[in-house]
Amino acid sequence: MEKLTIIKVGGKIVEEQQSLEQLLNDFANISGNKLLVHGGGRSATQIAAQLGIETQMVDGRRVTDANMLRVVTMVYGGLVNKNIVAQLQARHINAMGLTGADLDVIRSHKREPNPIDFGFVGDIDKVDGGRLAHLINAGIIPIMAPLTHDGKGHLLNTNADTIAGEVAKALTPYYNISLIFCFEKAGVMRDVDDETSVIPHINTSDFKQLADNGTIQGGMIPKIQNAIEALDAGVKEVIITKATAIDGSRGTKITK
Amino acid sequence: MEKLTIIKVGGKIVEEQQSLEQLLNDFANISGNKLLVHGGGRSATQIAAQLGIETQMVDGRRVTDANMLRVVTMVYGGLVNKNIVAQLQARHINAMGLTGADLDVIRSHKREPNPIDFGFVGDIDKVDGGRLAHLINAGIIPIMAPLTHDGKGHLLNTNADTIAGEVAKALTPYYNISLIFCFEKAGVMRDVDDETSVIPHINTSDFKQLADNGTIQGGMIPKIQNAIEALDAGVKEVIITKATAIDGSRGTKITK
Repeated sequence: MEKLTIIKVGGKIVEEQQSLEQLLNDFANISGNKLLVHGGGRSATQIAAQLGIETQMVDGRRVTDANMLRVVTMVYGGLVNKNIVAQLQARHINAMGLTGADLDVIRSHKREPNPIDFGFVGDIDKVDGGRLAHLINAGIIPIMAPLTHDGKGHLLNTNADTIAGEVAKALTPYYNISLIFCFEKAGVMRDVDDETSVIPHINTSDFKQLADNGTIQGGMIPKIQNAIEALDAGVKEVIITKATAIDGSRGTKITK
Repeated sequence: MEKLTIIKVGGKIVEEQQSLEQLLNDFANISGNKLLVHGGGRSATQIAAQLGIETQMVDGRRVTDANMLRVVTMVYGGLVNKNIVAQLQARHINAMGLTGADLDVIRSHKREPNPIDFGFVGDIDKVDGGRLAHLINAGIIPIMAPLTHDGKGHLLNTNADTIAGEVAKALTPYYNISLIFCFEKAGVMRDVDDETSVIPHINTSDFKQLADNGTIQGGMIPKIQNAIEALDAGVKEVIITKATAIDGSRGTKITK
C-alpha cells in the first residue's frame, strides 16, 4: 500500500500569514499522497464579533446557533479553505477544498441537545473513504474544512481533530497512514512550560500511567485518546508535534 | 457527444430560501450532465454592511478592495456555495463546490486599474476544460462560485456570467452545451414591463437590429454579446430565461 500523510493544523497557525506560509511550504514538500484538515476558530470568533454575534464556548467547544453556523460556513468553508487552496496552487500543489457536504464525503447528525446544547454541531456517522481515495489516486490533494452535513440539506460544525481522525480511519483500507496533529507546542510535554521536555514516544500503557499520575492532562487527553482510537482502527502512526515540524521527525509519536 | 447543461443563476434567486429550493428542485430534475454557476452579490453586500464595509459599484460591477475580497470569499466560496452543495446532496445530486482556485480550474489576472480600479477583480485567462470534463465524466456535478485565482496565491472576484460563458466555451470540445442564464425576468422582452413580450428567438442579425433600434438596451446588451461569443466558440445553444424555467422550454433562445 502507498503512504498517505494526513496533517491536521489548528486555527492559530492557518490564520497568521507568516505561520501559514511556513506550514504551506512544509506541506508542499511532503512527498507522496497527502491531505490537509484545517481549523479556523479564531477567525470565526473574530468575524462573529464584528457581526455582533457572541461566541459561547463550553469545554473548549463552540456553541453553534444558526447565526454562528453561517459564520463558520463562511470562515471555514470560504475564507480559510479557499485561501489555503489558492496558496497551495501557487506552490504547484493540486489542492481542492472540501467540506463534508461536497461529494457527500462526511455525513453527520446534529448532536443531541442533552446534557449541553451545542446547536448545529455534527457528530460523524460516515466518511466515504472510497471516494476520498479515488480523488487522492487521481493526484488531487484534499483540503478539508471542519464542516459536515446531515444529508438533509443542513451543514454542521464539526471538530477538525475529529474529522482528521475519522478520515484517517476511513482511509486505512487504501493507504499506510501517518496522521500528524500540529499545534503550537513541540509535542506532549512532561512540563508544559519546558519545550525540551517532549516525550518522544507514548504507547497505550505509557498513556494510562502518564494520565493517572497527572503528567498528561486537560485537552491533551482527548487528543491522545483520538490517536489511540485511530491506531486501533489501523492507522500506522500518529504524531503530535509543532506546526514547524510536520515532517513528523520531532514531536511525540503515539503507538499501540 | 453527450449533452451538458450549464445553468447560471444570479444572486437574488440563490439567496432567498423559497426561490433557491425551487431552483434546486428544477436543477436536480435536469437529466444528464450538468453544472451550476451561482452569484451571491446581495448577500455579499449585506454581510459587508454588517461588517461596516461599504459596497461601491461602478457600472453595476462591484469594486473589490482587500476587505471586500474577504467578504466575497466568505460569502461566495463558503455561505452560498456550501449551502447549495448541501441542499443538492439532500436531493441525491453528487454536488461538489469549486472556485477557480480548486484544482486550478480557472486562472485569471487582476484587472488593470485604468480607467477604473475595480480592485481584486479577475479577468479570466484560462479555464481547464479537460479537468472539468474529467470531473463531470466521473459523475460529479460542479457547483461553481464566482471566484478565480491568479496562480500566485491570490483569489480574485470574477463575474458569474463571465465564468459561465468561459466555462461553456472551454467545455465545447467535450460536450454539446446548452448554456442557460437564469434571472428574474422571463427572457429578453420587447417591453421590459410586459412579461408576455418575450422574444422567443434572437439571432446575430436580429440582435444588431434590436440593439440599433433601442428595443434591447442596458445590461441585456453585454449578456447577449456574451451569448453570441459562446455560440461562436461552439456552444450549441444559449437561453436567457426565468429561474423557474431552467429546462430551457421558455425564455429567449439565442442562435448565430
